[in-house]
Amino acid sequence: MNYQFSNRISKIKVNPLRANARKNMEHPDVISFAYGFPPEVAFPSKQLSEISQKLYDLENHETFLQYGPSEGHPEFLTALGKRLSSVVNVYDSDTDDLMVVSGSTQGMDLTVKAFCNEGDIVICEAQTFSGAVNSIRAYGAEPLAIPMKGETIDLDLVETALIADVDHKIKLIYLIPTFQNPLGTSMPLADRIRIYELAKTYGVMIFEDDPYGDLLYEGEPIPKIKSFDTEGLVIYSGSFSKILAPSTRVGFLVIPKMAYQMVLLGKQTSDSHTNQYWQLVAAKFMTDYDFEAHIEGLRELYKEKFMLMMSELDKISPDLMTYIRPAGGYFLCGKLSDALDTRRFYDYLIAHQVAVIPGNVMSVEQEGFDKYFRLNFTKPTLTEIRKGIKIISDALKVASISSSAEIFEQEAM
Amino acid sequence: MNYQFSNRISKIKVNPLRANARKNMEHPDVISFAYGFPPEVAFPSKQLSEISQKLYDLENHETFLQYGPSEGHPEFLTALGKRLSSVVNVYDSDTDDLMVVSGSTQGMDLTVKAFCNEGDIVICEAQTFSGAVNSIRAYGAEPLAIPMKGETIDLDLVETALIADVDHKIKLIYLIPTFQNPLGTSMPLADRIRIYELAKTYGVMIFEDDPYGDLLYEGEPIPKIKSFDTEGLVIYSGSFSKILAPSTRVGFLVIPKMAYQMVLLGKQTSDSHTNQYWQLVAAKFMTDYDFEAHIEGLRELYKEKFMLMMSELDKISPDLMTYIRPAGGYFLCGKLSDALDTRRFYDYLIAHQVAVIPGNVMSVEQEGFDKYFRLNFTKPTLTEIRKGIKIISDALKVASISSSAEIFEQEAM
Repeated sequence: MNYQFSNRISKIKVNPLRANARKNMEHPDVISFAYGFPPEVAFPSKQLSEISQKLYDLENHETFLQYGPSEGHPEFLTALGKRLSSVVNVYDSDTDDLMVVSGSTQGMDLTVKAFCNEGDIVICEAQTFSGAVNSIRAYGAEPLAIPMKGETIDLDLVETALIADVDHKIKLIYLIPTFQNPLGTSMPLADRIRIYELAKTYGVMIFEDDPYGDLLYEGEPIPKIKSFDTEGLVIYSGSFSKILAPSTRVGFLVIPKMAYQMVLLGKQTSDSHTNQYWQLVAAKFMTDYDFEAHIEGLRELYKEKFMLMMSELDKISPDLMTYIRPAGGYFLCGKLSDALDTRRFYDYLIAHQVAVIPGNVMSVEQEGFDKYFRLNFTKPTLTEIRKGIKIISDALKVASISSSAEIFEQEAM
Repeated sequence: MNYQFSNRISKIKVNPLRANARKNMEHPDVISFAYGFPPEVAFPSKQLSEISQKLYDLENHETFLQYGPSEGHPEFLTALGKRLSSVVNVYDSDTDDLMVVSGSTQGMDLTVKAFCNEGDIVICEAQTFSGAVNSIRAYGAEPLAIPMKGETIDLDLVETALIADVDHKIKLIYLIPTFQNPLGTSMPLADRIRIYELAKTYGVMIFEDDPYGDLLYEGEPIPKIKSFDTEGLVIYSGSFSKILAPSTRVGFLVIPKMAYQMVLLGKQTSDSHTNQYWQLVAAKFMTDYDFEAHIEGLRELYKEKFMLMMSELDKISPDLMTYIRPAGGYFLCGKLSDALDTRRFYDYLIAHQVAVIPGNVMSVEQEGFDKYFRLNFTKPTLTEIRKGIKIISDALKVASISSSAEIFEQEAM
């Protein structure tokens, strides 16, 4: 058989790291700053076990074993709506609607499915979550990479692109405004307001991807773009992966009411509905337990690691590397000085078994960012952070030795 | 905001029944033969509860709470592979590969995603599962409805279509060969062999959708098309929805090895991975419990209902309706005689609160099959089957009274 694959599937850029994630994670000798995983201690196992047992103790099990509505389990949607109104400040039941999705990857997939034809364009931060970029390509749409300027996508370039788009091919702006992946940065409020105004002026939707939003460690939260979406331009995407457990596969969208049914149609054809067990476990955690205290516990757990990683990094000379200090989330992103030899940096890390995500992997074009490397601080232990950053520091020094100096040293040995 | 939706999403034919499924199901006065739901007693709650508790009792919970591989949890794939080799006879680890999917709807979605460009064609049985048809349309591909001839899609018409397809637009043949939805019919072996030969000759893939295959009540099982797939033409799709619980959202594909990676790419961009809790629960049910005895119990439970429904239907005159007797599965499909007034038939059922699925709903074009109606026999109780089929019998009699006679009766009152 001579297999003929669709054009769109052939456009997806393969991320070999993904497939090997578990294998690498489980290698005991590797210090991994690579993946955006929570540590095992972050799972609220005791509460999950209790809630689970209560579900099985119910007389009727249809509520979590039977087919369910594509929109989501009513109990989940109600509990989630309350939290989004009172804590996250993005939900207003008069203007928006909630939909469960099977993880936030599906949220982006369904949005592209509903709004983008083949050949349509989605504006993206040039350095961004490659999974979302692949969701765009998997429908034959084209991501348009726009560079960052400080902590924000370059808004002048966004406007230039929108002005030039006379055929209205640009349908969507994909953003991770809070604790960006991979950069860790957050768009200031003024920039959020300006990009919303641009979207309004040019009739383009915004996808606000916010999987880390609850994990603030320093300063005050910045209002979500969705919080001032009076025109119904913003699809807000959240997830329980980072605040409960990734394998729940429970994420959600807040969708402008008039667009809701079309996204729902895509959900029905994609996977019919999301597993109800985890929707109910999440719902009961929110209603019967102190979910906010659990999240506060995560913040404390991660803040300690976050502060340690930064204090260790701050010992490294800015002549070797720099980074923008995040205020929360899962990642920060180092940038090697131009003079450094990138290949030698990575070779040293591999030889000394420290895993990071190279900047090109978390970029739209999978190139142009080889001086960047992403560091996750939630999964490693404090000891691993100390040891790992020391090795990164050594790798930077090795990468800074000029080739001639190295040859001289070798000859002298 | 003036929302612009993608062309492809606009092609999906809305199935209003779906969204209202739970609401209708829960109305206590309605006798429902409508949805393909298992009854509550079919859930092996005791075993599920035990397995679940054992998972939570493990020291490390990463195995079911952490991110997992897109291919599926290794323990699930191993247990499933054994069952498919020894019981279902479709799996040969030398030629094929297994992948978990989030319910069999996703299996079809991913297959269309990987193999069909916009404008490509998928041959379908004219009466078929509308969810699969919508998955086709959701990628801008076109379902080509070919009528049934007895228990098989009309193979001469399939060949005519393949011969005429000089541009090779036909990429896939979508079939439910065993206990077809909505007809309940099964393709005889000779027809399975012939359609496989057609696929081979014309270089087209077959998607063998088999969610009901384990539920045989009469006679011997017919070999799956996948069981003689020496050329790697067949993607076999199975599910735990009907043999464990629908809300597990655990289905699977057996994919020819050379096509595996491209389908996997689509899975990664669609929902990253399937929830691991239910993969592990299913795995442990297969390895630590007698899963085949559980399925034998389902067969006994459903066979009694199946036999009763047919014996009740057999009291109805073939001048009013006919049906093809299935050998297993979830459904059978009645056909009103041509002379009957369809509208009057459905009006009577609605007035007397009996729900069935009208034939047009389970068809590619959503029209042309208004004389058909699908009956599910797994969810209703024996009492409901007796009462409901009596009402259907009455509805048929009412629908057979000619309009003039009805007017006469009304005037005489």
